Formats: sequence, C-alpha cells, structure tokens
Amino acid sequence: MKLILGLLAAVLLTSCHGTLTEQIAEEEIKLAISEQQDAWNAGDIELFMSWYKNDENISFATSGGVLKGYDQLLKRYEKSYPNKEKMGRLEFELMEYIPAGENYAVLVGKWILYRANDTPQGYFSLLWERTDAGWKIIHDHTS
Amino acid sequence: MKLILGLLAAVLLTSCHGTLTEQIAEEEIKLAISEQQDAWNAGDIELFMSWYKNDENISFATSGGVLKGYDQLLKRYEKSYPNKEKMGRLEFELMEYIPAGENYAVLVGKWILYRANDTPQGYFSLLWERTDAGWKIIHDHTS
Repeated sequence: MKLILGLLAAVLLTSCHGTLTEQIAEEEIKLAISEQQDAWNAGDIELFMSWYKNDENISFATSGGVLKGYDQLLKRYEKSYPNKEKMGRLEFELMEYIPAGENYAVLVGKWILYRANDTPQGYFSLLWERTDAGWKIIHDHTS
Repeated sequence: MKLILGLLAAVLLTSCHGTLTEQIAEEEIKLAISEQQDAWNAGDIELFMSWYKNDENISFATSGGVLKGYDQLLKRYEKSYPNKEKMGRLEFELMEYIPAGENYAVLVGKWILYRANDTPQGYFSLLWERTDAGWKIIHDHTS
C-alpha cells in the first residue's frame, strides 16, 4: 500500500512538474517587468536596461526598423529619454503570457507614458529567456 | 580503439544534437513562411492563415491593440483584404531567427505590400510553435 501511494505521489509530482515550473516562471517574469517599470519611474535607464540580456544578439523591433544589440538599445533609450521629464511615468498593463518551453516565454502588454505634454502609448511583445542571471529580454517588439 | 572512436562519435553526436535540431527547425520555419507568402500572393487567405495555429489562445498585436484567437484573426484579414487588389503582392524580408528551445522560435522580418496605389510596409515578430501539424504561429506582433 505504501509502495502504491509512493508511486502515485511520484506520478502526480512528475505530471505537475511542467505546470508548476510554468507558474513559477510566469510569476518571476511578472515580478521582473514590475521591477523594470519601477526602475524607469525612478529615472534609472541603466537599471531599466538590466532586464535586457547584455548581448550583441538581442533585437528590438518597431514600426521604424529592427535595432540589434544591447549597446545600441541602451544608446537609443538614452537618446530618446535624456531626462526625467521625457521619461515621464511609465505604466505597463499585462495582457498575454505565453510560455514557450521551460526557458522562454513571451509577455504581451500595453505601455503608457504619462508626461506633462503628451501621453504616448502602444503595445509590446517581449521574448524572455531564463539565464544564469535570471529572466532577461532577448527580443522586444514595441509599437 | 574502436570503442574509443565509438564513444567519441557518440559524444560528438550528442553535443551537436541541439545545433542540428535548431538548424533543421530554422530551415522548416523559413520554408513555412515562404509558403505562407506564396499563399498570400495566390490570393488565398485561408491557406495563408493555415500557418497560424487554429486556437483561441493565439494573439496578434499591432500598434492599435491585441486581437485574440484564430477566428478573430481570420475575420480581420478577410475584412482588411477583401480582394486580390487589396492583398497586392506581399514580400517578406527575413532579418532575425531566434531559437527558443527545441519547440519554439521567433522570426523577425520586414513586410512590404506592393499595391497599385500604395506600398504599406513594416516589421513583424512571429512566435512559432512546433505542433503535430508542423510549425505554427502562436503570436504575431506586426507594426
């Protein structure tokens, strides 16, 4: 009887493994983007950027083109948002979480920038990768 | 000696496995999108749509919002492109292939629609999933 219960427990644990891992991943990624939003709202672009993988192969797509590499992306952010006034207050609204195996996931949502003179907004799709340094964005399509 | 060579071959095969699988996946996905482009240019929206997963959870993001489900996406395509004149001639230019484990990958590229009176264009990021029916798009961000 003990053996049967033990086997049953093992089967249950195994069959739940994927789901549990996925649930934990989802929580981790949602925490990451919440911390990223806080970094932006603290006016800290370098900290905001630390959730992108520091890699020359990451990419960032917009309606204007595709930019490649962490350094290029940092430069673009620093140029477009030179001060707190331009950075405004950022709000993310999460819409879709799409798991893609144990080590990748896509997060889709809306972004709104509240600034003194305008309120630019749009949508983003972020591809996250599980790395030794935690979840990092390796592709961003923002429109 | 034979044993050592055998073991060496096994180690090499194992270490190359991921790369080989990734290379095959990349070729399969690039073939899929090329066939998808051909379907569009043949004026066959239903065939074009068959590379999207027929699932209510797929999503399609643009600068205007996020649309959910295969049926909604098909409706949107049929409404926006009611005839061959509106469909024009579609050209994809592939820019980035991002593997995400063995069963997922993101393909980034440019799209151009050559029509009699205009040439709309932009960029896309497609999340592909390996399914029993082949590689299917489960998320599309087009801008």
